[in-house]
Amino acid sequence: MYTFPTLEEIKLAHERIQPFIHRTPILKSEVINEMAGCEVYFKCENFQKVGAFKARGAANAVVKLSDEQKKNGVATHSSGNHAAALARAATVAGIKSYIVMPSSAPEIKKKAVKSYGGEIIECEPNLMARETTLQAVVDKTEATFIPPYDYFDVVEGQATCALEMWEEGIDFDTIMAPVGGGGLLGGTALTTKYISPRTKVIAGEPEGADDAYRSFQAKKLIPMDVPNTIADGLLTSLGKLNFQIIMEHVDDIFTVNDEEIIAAMRLIYERMKIVIEPSCAVPLAALLKNKEQFKGQKVGIILSGGNVDLGKLPF
Amino acid sequence: MYTFPTLEEIKLAHERIQPFIHRTPILKSEVINEMAGCEVYFKCENFQKVGAFKARGAANAVVKLSDEQKKNGVATHSSGNHAAALARAATVAGIKSYIVMPSSAPEIKKKAVKSYGGEIIECEPNLMARETTLQAVVDKTEATFIPPYDYFDVVEGQATCALEMWEEGIDFDTIMAPVGGGGLLGGTALTTKYISPRTKVIAGEPEGADDAYRSFQAKKLIPMDVPNTIADGLLTSLGKLNFQIIMEHVDDIFTVNDEEIIAAMRLIYERMKIVIEPSCAVPLAALLKNKEQFKGQKVGIILSGGNVDLGKLPF
Repeated sequence: MYTFPTLEEIKLAHERIQPFIHRTPILKSEVINEMAGCEVYFKCENFQKVGAFKARGAANAVVKLSDEQKKNGVATHSSGNHAAALARAATVAGIKSYIVMPSSAPEIKKKAVKSYGGEIIECEPNLMARETTLQAVVDKTEATFIPPYDYFDVVEGQATCALEMWEEGIDFDTIMAPVGGGGLLGGTALTTKYISPRTKVIAGEPEGADDAYRSFQAKKLIPMDVPNTIADGLLTSLGKLNFQIIMEHVDDIFTVNDEEIIAAMRLIYERMKIVIEPSCAVPLAALLKNKEQFKGQKVGIILSGGNVDLGKLPF
Repeated sequence: MYTFPTLEEIKLAHERIQPFIHRTPILKSEVINEMAGCEVYFKCENFQKVGAFKARGAANAVVKLSDEQKKNGVATHSSGNHAAALARAATVAGIKSYIVMPSSAPEIKKKAVKSYGGEIIECEPNLMARETTLQAVVDKTEATFIPPYDYFDVVEGQATCALEMWEEGIDFDTIMAPVGGGGLLGGTALTTKYISPRTKVIAGEPEGADDAYRSFQAKKLIPMDVPNTIADGLLTSLGKLNFQIIMEHVDDIFTVNDEEIIAAMRLIYERMKIVIEPSCAVPLAALLKNKEQFKGQKVGIILSGGNVDLGKLPF
């Protein structure tokens, strides 16, 4: 059994990471509200530092390191946004970062890691290769491994996103987030249930990487073997800590296919005039697919990031 | 000689159109500031109603109609954003709108006009065809023609965009806008020179539609024959009223080629995570091409609109 961050700890994390993050805006769209039949509040983490909510968890983990740990730097494996976030947090804190990335990661995400001062070590695009390559890096450098999602300090950091949403004074009936490894969803569920137990927390997940959905239904952790979805930020399997938070605090998980994800993504580009990555569009796609369940509600949706390869937009 | 709107009139217009418009945010990007060597403040009219600053001028013109004129509705010709803006303003005011559009206009812009309740009349994509088709519509319906840019009420409305920028309390050294027909540039120049005569007003214009640049240099109005640029919002020739405002109040016009426009456009998508149309990127492209002239300055740039055909992004 894992210990979860408390509301006090989440609030402390929010103070701790202030120098590292933006307070991102909440945007609305009349047209989308009309289509959805409810009031949707988009928390725009695509405008966050490094272009994704991952800036929160990475900063929190780096700031909490001991002086001794800081000497050897940090290391991680990540398909993208956590990589950039950890590299930036490390550079801002004046320490080294070693980032193991799958060779298949989008070019824009590799470029970002480099520009933030991270050292990239490439590996084959599968979990096994990531883990063995990471172990070799840690053995050699004695850097502290900061996991991308299944890690107390990271979940505590991601939980600060929902904290900002609640600070806006909106009485959300539902809060939605995408789920990949579960760090954002876990943190969002914790904060939300601490502050407003009546509010539903619902995840959106791609059908092509639906391990969280299947795990949630089966009440046991089922890893994802070969994910296949346009939502490249949600390919990883659910973490153990996050699975436990989700079983205790998440109300439902809805799946959507890539066509639905692309339609929701296009809607956000056309109507809100903002750039998001495909993973972001998953909760809105899930809402539009199940809109009778949200009728008349105030729904908060976390737009998780905006790091998309513009040369490969699906429209 | 034309009469120009006074600062008092521009302020009244701003009050008049409040129910029709958003107060759009000003955004900044650290990375772009570093690249530009100055502080750039982007006024985000891509987030404006109908996705463009044109909402301002159209609303102002519609609200100022007499009750008698309102009975027969309004008509215009426009390659896009003015069309949508006038259709929406008319529908909100409860009157009819007839929109003459070139058959070559982007599909998204035609769709927008229809969705706002405008009646579209298509014509060949040249100024002559636009004008004769429009005349036929006006003869038949007795609607009031609201020109897209060369019209007192429209310029007065567009001038409210710079008014909002000045209300933010930023002491701009330079304000930049794109120039097509000159309504936005003219309005921006008037407001800016009324409020801060020392501030430079500089336009960006595509090389492939550089009639404003050539007119400005020659000190006489030279129309554009066959424009050819990706900046599809800037194809029209400079208006007479606007030419006079520009000769009196604009400090310089810089031209950029399509490659430079696309690079600046991509920079805004990647770094600011917002959706803009190519015309918007012209002033930033002009700034980056001439950055030694802006060193250390506070530069305001109007991002004029966000209505782009996502299926045809140039990257």
